[in-house]
Amino acid sequence: MKTLKIIKIGGNIIDNDFVLDDFLKHFSSLEGPKILVHGGGKLATKLAHQMGVKVNMIDGRRITDAATLDIITMVYAGKINKSIIAKLQSQQCNAVGFSGADGNTIVSVKRPVKDIDFGSVGDVQKVNTETTNLLLAGNVTPVFCAITHDANGQLLNTNADTIASELAIGFAELYHTELYYCFEKSGVLKDINAEDSVIENINSTNYQNLKDQGIIADGMLPKLENCFHAITNKVKKVCIGKPEMLFNSNSKFTTIQD
Amino acid sequence: MKTLKIIKIGGNIIDNDFVLDDFLKHFSSLEGPKILVHGGGKLATKLAHQMGVKVNMIDGRRITDAATLDIITMVYAGKINKSIIAKLQSQQCNAVGFSGADGNTIVSVKRPVKDIDFGSVGDVQKVNTETTNLLLAGNVTPVFCAITHDANGQLLNTNADTIASELAIGFAELYHTELYYCFEKSGVLKDINAEDSVIENINSTNYQNLKDQGIIADGMLPKLENCFHAITNKVKKVCIGKPEMLFNSNSKFTTIQD
Repeated sequence: MKTLKIIKIGGNIIDNDFVLDDFLKHFSSLEGPKILVHGGGKLATKLAHQMGVKVNMIDGRRITDAATLDIITMVYAGKINKSIIAKLQSQQCNAVGFSGADGNTIVSVKRPVKDIDFGSVGDVQKVNTETTNLLLAGNVTPVFCAITHDANGQLLNTNADTIASELAIGFAELYHTELYYCFEKSGVLKDINAEDSVIENINSTNYQNLKDQGIIADGMLPKLENCFHAITNKVKKVCIGKPEMLFNSNSKFTTIQD
Repeated sequence: MKTLKIIKIGGNIIDNDFVLDDFLKHFSSLEGPKILVHGGGKLATKLAHQMGVKVNMIDGRRITDAATLDIITMVYAGKINKSIIAKLQSQQCNAVGFSGADGNTIVSVKRPVKDIDFGSVGDVQKVNTETTNLLLAGNVTPVFCAITHDANGQLLNTNADTIASELAIGFAELYHTELYYCFEKSGVLKDINAEDSVIENINSTNYQNLKDQGIIADGMLPKLENCFHAITNKVKKVCIGKPEMLFNSNSKFTTIQD
């Protein structure tokens, strides 16, 4: 089996043109099949303000009403995705942009309403690898934005970390999949203010300890849940760190183990 | 050689949800390889107003400054394209959205400044069929929005009629290509107010007459130029009319001949 790298980048890379260009230059030079997944950064919120659309956040999660879904679709699948594609092409990396609707690749269900109605937010139900794999086999790099669909014509807003882990799991039948979460820190840190305090390995045993001690908390919790979901579902390697972990063999990062 | 249908739809279909749904239902049922090309309709202008971005038109052509290019990318490649893709998937038509940057499919050059600087507007230079054809061969339908790139990282606004004709010409080496321009009239009309006055055949001889008589004028001129460009460059069939021309063998429409 070939190795397929699935790499997720977030707002710290997307929101800074210089950082994004540098990342994409390195990304283009990565050999072998690869998939890029990008979040939305701050642009969607900025556009909402410009359009006078109210941003509704509950517990850090965006409530996706119809106007917000339009904004997200325009920013994620339009501006950010196409700008990344054009930049990759200029680096001789042949790329094609995807939402989960394209190629029917990621089918979701609207999140059921319990206490909160999140609106058009999708929980991933199924990954269809067939269409994307036509491109991977032809040496083309798919670039996914954080949008899925319900297969009945409705687009759904879906967490980019989740899209990355579900793609890594979905492709595990065809490739040795490796999942890389790139963000602004060198990995999961013991001391959030000390970049050299990277916890190099996290497994299910020390994970519980780290949670109990409050070292892993807040936004890191869902990221780690995505990591464990992947590593316990046939994904061969799951890493969290700065993009350097992909390009520089001396850099430290966190590896998640079963 | 197989036949490949390239079908362009404009604002009259895109701007009306009911009409769009009906068209996409019929489009999905078309057998054989097919490509859809869509324009932008009125949504880009609406968004520009909402965002307070000034719309600059000269002779009916949009001047594409940086803010306008962002709007176009968001509306064409984001909202309209992904909404079409989701609707096609719900009709069991497996589709993937494209700009000309995706797959490096349509390379343009920024239109040279003569009297007017049109801004980020691209004139098509080259069509690369390889990536799109991986999908066509896998029974996937590419859906193109009216954006191209310059291969140096710059997206460019490009006329949707031109994109359709250039794709038809580009794919003519691999397929018998047929080009269909769908719009609100039954074809080129002798009397613009009489739907039954369709001119069924236009060739280079009667074209000159029709222009001299002022029957073909204004917006129809560039459309006809695209048609003749295609039919004189190995495209097998070029038609203008209502979408019915594709689905109803009794409907009348205009065929362009060499």
